[in-house]
Amino acid sequence: MMPLSKRLAAEFVGTLWLVLGGCGSAVFSLAFPDVAASPNFGIGILGVALAFGLTVLTMAFAIGHISGCHLNPAVSVGLVVAGRFPAKDLVPYIVAQVLGAIAAAAIIYVIASGQPGWEIGRFAANGYGEAAPGSFGSPGGYSLVACFVSEVVMTFMFLIVIIGATDERAPKGLAPIAIGLCLTLIHLISIPITATSVNPARSTGPAIFAGGWALSQLWLFWVAPIIGAAIAGGLYKAIWRKD
Amino acid sequence: MMPLSKRLAAEFVGTLWLVLGGCGSAVFSLAFPDVAASPNFGIGILGVALAFGLTVLTMAFAIGHISGCHLNPAVSVGLVVAGRFPAKDLVPYIVAQVLGAIAAAAIIYVIASGQPGWEIGRFAANGYGEAAPGSFGSPGGYSLVACFVSEVVMTFMFLIVIIGATDERAPKGLAPIAIGLCLTLIHLISIPITATSVNPARSTGPAIFAGGWALSQLWLFWVAPIIGAAIAGGLYKAIWRKD
Amino acid sequence: MMPLSKRLAAEFVGTLWLVLGGCGSAVFSLAFPDVAASPNFGIGILGVALAFGLTVLTMAFAIGHISGCHLNPAVSVGLVVAGRFPAKDLVPYIVAQVLGAIAAAAIIYVIASGQPGWEIGRFAANGYGEAAPGSFGSPGGYSLVACFVSEVVMTFMFLIVIIGATDERAPKGLAPIAIGLCLTLIHLISIPITATSVNPARSTGPAIFAGGWALSQLWLFWVAPIIGAAIAGGLYKAIWRKD
Amino acid sequence: MMPLSKRLAAEFVGTLWLVLGGCGSAVFSLAFPDVAASPNFGIGILGVALAFGLTVLTMAFAIGHISGCHLNPAVSVGLVVAGRFPAKDLVPYIVAQVLGAIAAAAIIYVIASGQPGWEIGRFAANGYGEAAPGSFGSPGGYSLVACFVSEVVMTFMFLIVIIGATDERAPKGLAPIAIGLCLTLIHLISIPITATSVNPARSTGPAIFAGGWALSQLWLFWVAPIIGAAIAGGLYKAIWRKD
Repeated sequence: MMPLSKRLAAEFVGTLWLVLGGCGSAVFSLAFPDVAASPNFGIGILGVALAFGLTVLTMAFAIGHISGCHLNPAVSVGLVVAGRFPAKDLVPYIVAQVLGAIAAAAIIYVIASGQPGWEIGRFAANGYGEAAPGSFGSPGGYSLVACFVSEVVMTFMFLIVIIGATDERAPKGLAPIAIGLCLTLIHLISIPITATSVNPARSTGPAIFAGGWALSQLWLFWVAPIIGAAIAGGLYKAIWRKD
Repeated sequence: MMPLSKRLAAEFVGTLWLVLGGCGSAVFSLAFPDVAASPNFGIGILGVALAFGLTVLTMAFAIGHISGCHLNPAVSVGLVVAGRFPAKDLVPYIVAQVLGAIAAAAIIYVIASGQPGWEIGRFAANGYGEAAPGSFGSPGGYSLVACFVSEVVMTFMFLIVIIGATDERAPKGLAPIAIGLCLTLIHLISIPITATSVNPARSTGPAIFAGGWALSQLWLFWVAPIIGAAIAGGLYKAIWRKD
Repeated sequence: MMPLSKRLAAEFVGTLWLVLGGCGSAVFSLAFPDVAASPNFGIGILGVALAFGLTVLTMAFAIGHISGCHLNPAVSVGLVVAGRFPAKDLVPYIVAQVLGAIAAAAIIYVIASGQPGWEIGRFAANGYGEAAPGSFGSPGGYSLVACFVSEVVMTFMFLIVIIGATDERAPKGLAPIAIGLCLTLIHLISIPITATSVNPARSTGPAIFAGGWALSQLWLFWVAPIIGAAIAGGLYKAIWRKD
Repeated sequence: MMPLSKRLAAEFVGTLWLVLGGCGSAVFSLAFPDVAASPNFGIGILGVALAFGLTVLTMAFAIGHISGCHLNPAVSVGLVVAGRFPAKDLVPYIVAQVLGAIAAAAIIYVIASGQPGWEIGRFAANGYGEAAPGSFGSPGGYSLVACFVSEVVMTFMFLIVIIGATDERAPKGLAPIAIGLCLTLIHLISIPITATSVNPARSTGPAIFAGGWALSQLWLFWVAPIIGAAIAGGLYKAIWRKD
């Protein structure tokens, strides 16, 4: 195994790519051109979902052999619970992931600011509940409970796929495809609900730039994904691990 | 092989994911925002087709080594006919699949109910024929015969791909990609016809919540897929099996 | 190698799937619902391109080990020229492919006829040139020369990918992904030009049902793809084959 | 290793495919039909992004074993810096890549000219800054600085994925999928910013046909990608190479 510092550098770059690719595609390309009554060439929810998944697919091939390519505090927690990752590395991994996410949000901000008249808007931050005036929340106005359930369930399923696809009995070398496309699938389902987190680091980066509403709702996107991930890690270990 | 109870747990979770991902993406994301005269970021038929396929792709990598990842009574039947799956496990597998599908529909209902003003509508249930007033049916108004033919043919081809891609002469480890993307393809073709079943469990979950019309049409989505699957299983065994 | 009759059965079923999936998705799902001034959930050119590619990807995994999964007379010709396929099997393969394509067009016709008010229209047939009144041609009105160049070049590149990806030096087992997604790519480029053939069998099936204009233009979709494929087969053999 | 001339032929054909597929899909299929107030079946940014990625995915399977499938001067430079490619082959590779790109642009021009009333417009050329009247620039009007940052960062990440996914510790044979889909991801993020280059050859082909504005802005699409690629090559070698 590589020294911790080199693995942390990989987690930093990888999480930077996750947020730059996923949130960046939402900020730059969800709708394009952003002009009413014009043909829309934007990538929509489908394109953003694909982008998030491809950040993980590409990085899992590129740095999986270096750091394991978690890119996500909930994933690291789930793997600790499942007995696949040492608890002593958990906090450094999470710090590297959050720093990478913040760096990505900064890059998005710098580029986006280069467009005349740009306003920050949602900035791909996650949210719940009906939006207060001048604020954001759940894209589709889903209640806090619905958003909490969604994030728990989606992260639970994400970890089942991660732990199952990296099981030694699963086909070798293909886990990056399964895991990346699982993240795409999760976004296809739940972007209208919470803008999809399942990843506390991914939520933290944009929230710092989007400001008050996003920061005040950030707790849910730490708590719910970690609960879902921990349950999945425990369940897989209890039922399906290789004896 | 794992004990039956552990395999059934995997089929339950896997079928839950199939319905939650496929039907859930249809309920939450097909059109978004659901406001006339607004830019539409929804994922459309293409996105729902991708979601259904990715549920199978991801689960086949995650639990293929546990239960074989059927997630579908028609698949289990086809594999029995092809001589690939023991008939004695058929009924327990089907029960686990149907229960997983119902659990998924319940989760979708809970989350969807968290959106103000939400109405259940089609709820991704399958149907045939022109819709009666206040009801649903074939999304494109296709006749019962057309819908029956479509479900038989699509499930036949699905099983040909499943049995062929898991043949010991096929490339190792890649069947999840072939099978998952085959389900995507089937949805690209036939969502306008029946909303696409090829899976009795997938049809049963939403029908229970969508109510009368969906339950009264449910028979077709048990009969037609199982016929198509059984023919494919018999044909492959008769012609193409390894001697 | 399997007996010729079993390989021909596989080519029949495989080409049936290519036309049913590719042309069927165009007929049923390109635009949906087919009502002006309504939100459009149709799969568009992108979805049809994906469908064509996935027919080949899925079948190459399912029957590649049986017949080689050509599904296309131009592919069979190109492989003969490249020295990869025996010339004596060429005519039987082409017959099986054309029959499969016709069977698929018949299935599409039967299902489509089940929709009230349906008219056959283009029926996914290929064409060139500006359309005469009451007829079809190139979807975008491209000239015969442009269409001919497009079909030659696209089939040339298709065969380069097929021959290269099945070279013994290429990664094992992944050719179905490369070849299937190459067909998707070819459709992304050239559906507006000719509705994309690169496959004489695929062109023949729908043309028989679409009638006069499609049959009178069918020659181009036999001549141009075969020329492109033969050049590619000869070039690869001359320059890049393993010594 | 094959003789240089055969490898250069592969780089020529491969880069031709990259530009023909990526820029060609943008010219022919981004919007279709190109008629206001008509349903739009065009592939949009999502489809063009997919096309670019699939050119690389398909060619990496087809010619990866012949030339390494760089198709991009920035990639060749990055691999030299990373110690993966001999510096003496750099200039011939770049010449072959640029000639392939120009040949592709010529084919696109010939086909596009076959459509009545066609005007060359952007011709998929890259640009930066707000467009002068009668000219083009950044599709979304992003400033020169934003475009420069975007191209450096995107190419940096592209090379991290290329070098990482071809590391001997990464899963065998799957790098074409990782690298191709990484290029798709990069386009999902940055088409609105610069029309996405990350490849000086890709920029040069269309610029020659698009004329003055594109040629005068071409420098950025040589300088920025090469800087990003060189930094990535140096970083990977310094931190993450296998000892």
